[in-house]
Amino acid sequence: MTSHDSGNASARGLVGVIGGVGPAATVCFLDKVVRLTAADTDQEHVELVVLQHSSIPDRTAFILGTSPQDPGPVMARDARRLSSLGVDFIVVPCNTAHFFTAEVEAASSVPVLSIVDETLDEVARDGAVRTVGLLATSGTLTSGVYQRAAQARGLSTLEPDEQDQARVMRIIYDQVKAGRPADVAGLLDVVAGLVARGADRVVLGCTELSVVADEAGLLERPELVDSLDVLARCTVLRAGHTLRD
Amino acid sequence: MTSHDSGNASARGLVGVIGGVGPAATVCFLDKVVRLTAADTDQEHVELVVLQHSSIPDRTAFILGTSPQDPGPVMARDARRLSSLGVDFIVVPCNTAHFFTAEVEAASSVPVLSIVDETLDEVARDGAVRTVGLLATSGTLTSGVYQRAAQARGLSTLEPDEQDQARVMRIIYDQVKAGRPADVAGLLDVVAGLVARGADRVVLGCTELSVVADEAGLLERPELVDSLDVLARCTVLRAGHTLRD
Repeated sequence: MTSHDSGNASARGLVGVIGGVGPAATVCFLDKVVRLTAADTDQEHVELVVLQHSSIPDRTAFILGTSPQDPGPVMARDARRLSSLGVDFIVVPCNTAHFFTAEVEAASSVPVLSIVDETLDEVARDGAVRTVGLLATSGTLTSGVYQRAAQARGLSTLEPDEQDQARVMRIIYDQVKAGRPADVAGLLDVVAGLVARGADRVVLGCTELSVVADEAGLLERPELVDSLDVLARCTVLRAGHTLRD
Repeated sequence: MTSHDSGNASARGLVGVIGGVGPAATVCFLDKVVRLTAADTDQEHVELVVLQHSSIPDRTAFILGTSPQDPGPVMARDARRLSSLGVDFIVVPCNTAHFFTAEVEAASSVPVLSIVDETLDEVARDGAVRTVGLLATSGTLTSGVYQRAAQARGLSTLEPDEQDQARVMRIIYDQVKAGRPADVAGLLDVVAGLVARGADRVVLGCTELSVVADEAGLLERPELVDSLDVLARCTVLRAGHTLRD
């Protein structure tokens, strides 16, 4: 299962996925990759090796200092494992995990396709956008990965106030990660608050929020940019496939 | 990512998945595993290594003799690869692939959880069932894997007539595998035909049909037994987890 044993896929890449962070988000990512690929037969689809590695320690808890369990070395080991399997590039369908990107990239010679960079490239493609709202875990917001990447593209960022951030965290942890129905109206309320404060676009910068957007059909809303959807599209293209019309 | 590096999961098993056969069915399987697992946090979910190996040659084409490309050795290589990654058991979310089970099992010492055996065990659990209808690819029907496993459990089998089998194959190949909407009414019509001929239960013995059942909400129908749903439940339990209520 490498480029050279894939008959008709010789110019195509094998994708490595450090997944399980969280598990539903990884499934949502894989579903998007399949649906977004132009393919009439099984054999025309993107090939991936997926580590559904649910036990990777919680990223936000480590970043906020509420847990000593460091997910960095665990993900670095996964990167080496994927490298030994011959993957051409690695994706991690978790925004908060991108705090550890340097550690994951240093673990092997395999490049990591960054969900943060790809999402903000997508936002910046519309030259009229000046301010981007961020919906993410408190870990992602504290880590500053999105704020730095936005600044590098000349964008300013807006975050929910404390009360709204608590609502976002409840949706991520108490609802999606716990397998319970999500408060879609509450999420849209937080989005509307960021738009009212001046956000030209609002990034769904947590893959659990992407799961909500996927299930509730929020992707058509012009103010939203979904990080998981962007990552899936970039993965299909980077693997040498074409997007379905 | 083995039992021993998974902190709280020491009694739990790592699942290996030979997937991509087809790609949408593998995603549907993973989605079921996540949804069916009793878990409040990421870390309580089943861990899996998934080879989304779309380029595995078409199973039905080889069994029917319309293609010389043998998927058996390719799946056997995947089993060895999964074995080297320390998986405790292997699942293949494709019924037709079970024609090659002996070859896959011989490739390593890792056991294979058979979708065919688990599905017919589920059917046979209801002692009143005598006759089971089979909806599957022409490859699966020709291979006889379901008929032999049914006979071993004292069940007789019924297959669609030629015209209905052609409808089933169109749903599998021209619709689900091609990413197009499925003819749900047509599928239910074939099911009704088998019930009218005496089937006490009808097995969805092709994971592309499971994708249709999942999307169209057919799982509540008492006459249907969905092989992919059975495999997902057995996988959760075999990996040492509990099913969500």
